[in-house]
Amino acid sequence: MSLLELFLEAGSLKKLPRTGWLLRGVINPESIADHSFRTALIALFLADELRAKGIEIDTEKAIRMAILHDLAEARITDVPLTAQKYLDKGKGEREALMEMLSSIGRGDLLSLFDEYENETSIEGKLVKFADRMEMLIQAYEYEKAGFRNLDEFWGAVEKLRENELYEYFGDLIEDLVRLKRKVK
Amino acid sequence: MSLLELFLEAGSLKKLPRTGWLLRGVINPESIADHSFRTALIALFLADELRAKGIEIDTEKAIRMAILHDLAEARITDVPLTAQKYLDKGKGEREALMEMLSSIGRGDLLSLFDEYENETSIEGKLVKFADRMEMLIQAYEYEKAGFRNLDEFWGAVEKLRENELYEYFGDLIEDLVRLKRKVK
Amino acid sequence: MSLLELFLEAGSLKKLPRTGWLLRGVINPESIADHSFRTALIALFLADELRAKGIEIDTEKAIRMAILHDLAEARITDVPLTAQKYLDKGKGEREALMEMLSSIGRGDLLSLFDEYENETSIEGKLVKFADRMEMLIQAYEYEKAGFRNLDEFWGAVEKLRENELYEYFGDLIEDLVRLKRKVK
Amino acid sequence: MSLLELFLEAGSLKKLPRTGWLLRGVINPESIADHSFRTALIALFLADELRAKGIEIDTEKAIRMAILHDLAEARITDVPLTAQKYLDKGKGEREALMEMLSSIGRGDLLSLFDEYENETSIEGKLVKFADRMEMLIQAYEYEKAGFRNLDEFWGAVEKLRENELYEYFGDLIEDLVRLKRKVK
Amino acid sequence: MSLLELFLEAGSLKKLPRTGWLLRGVINPESIADHSFRTALIALFLADELRAKGIEIDTEKAIRMAILHDLAEARITDVPLTAQKYLDKGKGEREALMEMLSSIGRGDLLSLFDEYENETSIEGKLVKFADRMEMLIQAYEYEKAGFRNLDEFWGAVEKLRENELYEYFGDLIEDLVRLKRKVK
Amino acid sequence: MSLLELFLEAGSLKKLPRTGWLLRGVINPESIADHSFRTALIALFLADELRAKGIEIDTEKAIRMAILHDLAEARITDVPLTAQKYLDKGKGEREALMEMLSSIGRGDLLSLFDEYENETSIEGKLVKFADRMEMLIQAYEYEKAGFRNLDEFWGAVEKLRENELYEYFGDLIEDLVRLKRKVK
Repeated sequence: MSLLELFLEAGSLKKLPRTGWLLRGVINPESIADHSFRTALIALFLADELRAKGIEIDTEKAIRMAILHDLAEARITDVPLTAQKYLDKGKGEREALMEMLSSIGRGDLLSLFDEYENETSIEGKLVKFADRMEMLIQAYEYEKAGFRNLDEFWGAVEKLRENELYEYFGDLIEDLVRLKRKVK
Repeated sequence: MSLLELFLEAGSLKKLPRTGWLLRGVINPESIADHSFRTALIALFLADELRAKGIEIDTEKAIRMAILHDLAEARITDVPLTAQKYLDKGKGEREALMEMLSSIGRGDLLSLFDEYENETSIEGKLVKFADRMEMLIQAYEYEKAGFRNLDEFWGAVEKLRENELYEYFGDLIEDLVRLKRKVK
Repeated sequence: MSLLELFLEAGSLKKLPRTGWLLRGVINPESIADHSFRTALIALFLADELRAKGIEIDTEKAIRMAILHDLAEARITDVPLTAQKYLDKGKGEREALMEMLSSIGRGDLLSLFDEYENETSIEGKLVKFADRMEMLIQAYEYEKAGFRNLDEFWGAVEKLRENELYEYFGDLIEDLVRLKRKVK
Repeated sequence: MSLLELFLEAGSLKKLPRTGWLLRGVINPESIADHSFRTALIALFLADELRAKGIEIDTEKAIRMAILHDLAEARITDVPLTAQKYLDKGKGEREALMEMLSSIGRGDLLSLFDEYENETSIEGKLVKFADRMEMLIQAYEYEKAGFRNLDEFWGAVEKLRENELYEYFGDLIEDLVRLKRKVK
Repeated sequence: MSLLELFLEAGSLKKLPRTGWLLRGVINPESIADHSFRTALIALFLADELRAKGIEIDTEKAIRMAILHDLAEARITDVPLTAQKYLDKGKGEREALMEMLSSIGRGDLLSLFDEYENETSIEGKLVKFADRMEMLIQAYEYEKAGFRNLDEFWGAVEKLRENELYEYFGDLIEDLVRLKRKVK
Repeated sequence: MSLLELFLEAGSLKKLPRTGWLLRGVINPESIADHSFRTALIALFLADELRAKGIEIDTEKAIRMAILHDLAEARITDVPLTAQKYLDKGKGEREALMEMLSSIGRGDLLSLFDEYENETSIEGKLVKFADRMEMLIQAYEYEKAGFRNLDEFWGAVEKLRENELYEYFGDLIEDLVRLKRKVK
């Protein structure tokens, strides 16, 4: 695969819907690329914030990780929770990503995915934090616009509270929870 | 699971797009339910035709099979070909369907799926024929409307020619191929 | 008309929206084919249930009827209630269906439509029941997703309660009504 | 009906698709209101042009007629040609419009619809011309964007050539036909 | 620019969304042409009403003004409030409209836009009234359908109450406000 | 503005369409966020490639720049070329971005936008290259899917050929041009 072919394949992320919203009745929901974009934006600002607070973090690595964290879904699609009982999505994504990256001679980047999936580095923890936060912000926006049936998603707040970065970004999360409560 | 819950879950088939079209750039493509509907309609008429030609076939069984053939996708989604290298879609679908049907006390219907998947009965062969034919008719309609990039799908014509029911319905397929050729 | 032409014409049911939802502000609502699919699925399971309870019913006939019950809308479209004061939809649908079926030599199937429209057989009653139930399940799903303005549809509950099959499937309907009440 | 209720009912024209495009595979086509808007715009400029050429025409009447020419479709919907063999659309529209206008005490406006439908005045002829021209411009735009399968619509060119206003606006039509021919 | 080119350019108004709704989460909202159509319809009936009440008003001028009031957005798009702090939308629209109208030799119509923008004539006041009322009716319809987050729009009620035509059409506005309050 | 408010405002980029496609008839085109995502992905891989070739480049800076390059459009929207004759988009974007970044205490990031807009650094040149290349890849994908009327966009190839990075990535561009030529 050439770089151009990779860029073309990444185009699928613009076409593929995030199935969590779709299955709960959100019409024409965001694409995977939409989500990846804001996750990267959040990761950028939170990584800088961490560093400003004196935490050692490789900000470039965090941003790269965020951009790449759902790239494998160009092949796998956003297989929803209802399917994950029957299909090993994590394994499938890892294999697909390995193939994509190897074929352009960038197998070195696979470790970013692993650190993200297993939260084995400060950068991995941050991008997982950004990924979940992005989803919650979107849930809030859909609810504010009138969509309902999204309560399940807010279970992720607990996971964010258990993430060690909550110590630094707890305010952001609790502000969001307060906004969500005001949605009638 | 109650029957009502099954009917609710089947609602996902209306929301989920057929990913083959989506990934090739068809905007807002048909749902899985859309496809299942016409497959059932085709199966109904072709089964009657077969019987009229003196072939022994259980028409009711064929129609039921067509209605149920993609039901598991309510949980699994229409996992595309690009993903099937990494995920065992067939196995996942079978397990999901088994669970859905068992939980409403209708495990007896699972054999319909197996006969369809493995084409181990005349009814299974017919529904596979109807399933592929439905896809080709849709490909033709999208091409007629102006969409391009759907050539790959027409490989299914070869599979239809190898199906033993081609003997009876070859005309339909070749008429369709002729129509397709006229698309500019 | 050839069988292939019938299948092509049935493709319109995938493109045409159910106007009841559209006119009340549901964005990009289900297609007629979406509705027909789940109606057939419901008819299949309810027919089996009836027979299991010892009621005499031709399950195959019921399933066929469900698949065909809105086929004429491929020509007529889903003419909404607001129009039915000015246009005789029922008569139009019957004529269109008669023409479609006759032209492929299947005029024999027209009686299925009549039994459905006039509820003159147990199968006709069942498919009418399935048709209304399908609509209510969809109304519930749209309301759960956040859409409002669908109260009118729930008048159909009364019609279901008057249908003689309510004796057997009243639980399903009342469960659905309970779910609907929980929508905030 | 109050004026406010009329304005609310007219809102349906924004939601309802023009079915001619829909049935030929145009995804998410224009609304009836979209079409009515440009028809009114065209009528405005062509009426002024006629008067500038010394033709006696009531420009205000022509513009009003264009705004109202599809108002009845808020109740009737854009019943397509395939249905008009079975349903008397023209009669239905007239009755619906009569009711709408009478109920707000504006029965006087119904004659505008009649003059348009039957082309019994210069203004009626002009709005019919604008209505058809609007459709052709839209057909051209969809074709230019890549949609196909719209050849049937161009039959309207012949009707425009037979309209007595072709004498004045033939250039516009032939320019459009030339543009259309350049679409690859 | 020829008249045909103007009509083609006006086609952009069918494609362009009204950004106020879009930014608040309304999926696939109305087009600018949709809005312009109903504004013209409202202006037509309100202008007649005014005249019936003995107010001197040029009804034709009012209707023309309504049809043309957003024509410049075919070039400028519906630049939202968030942008108007940084871009002079009014000036941009006026220049674009001037160019469009001049190039077809209809610079005389520009004064209609000015009277509308600055509410310097009874017709200008009326079309501004119709424009705002149309937006509020649409806000109500979206809210009735389940969309939320549209409270800001209702600030326009105050502006309508200050418009001198409120004296004549206050009932319509207050009826709408009452309907809006009933939305749960 | 808090960081959370910035993330919320960035959500507009998911809702706003890229108007270039919209105005040429692409139905439901990509969002600004979709475009920003792939631009960042491309910038990431091209920056690494440059460095691998021994060019001095701050890869982190390039990736950040790509993520932020259209952030101001959350307020300004994707004001199309047709409007830029009447509105100073560049100036508007810069002011909006300055306000957004200052209000979260990150005015330091504004220089990234300037370097991108004016191509005053190797990173700025790279992101401009990635931005244009992303657009061309998307044009190719739409054309491959059947959309037409996108020829104008390919003028950007000339600009890419003049960019000094063409020396390194000319192959990618010419491969894309070859693919485009094969679209029928």
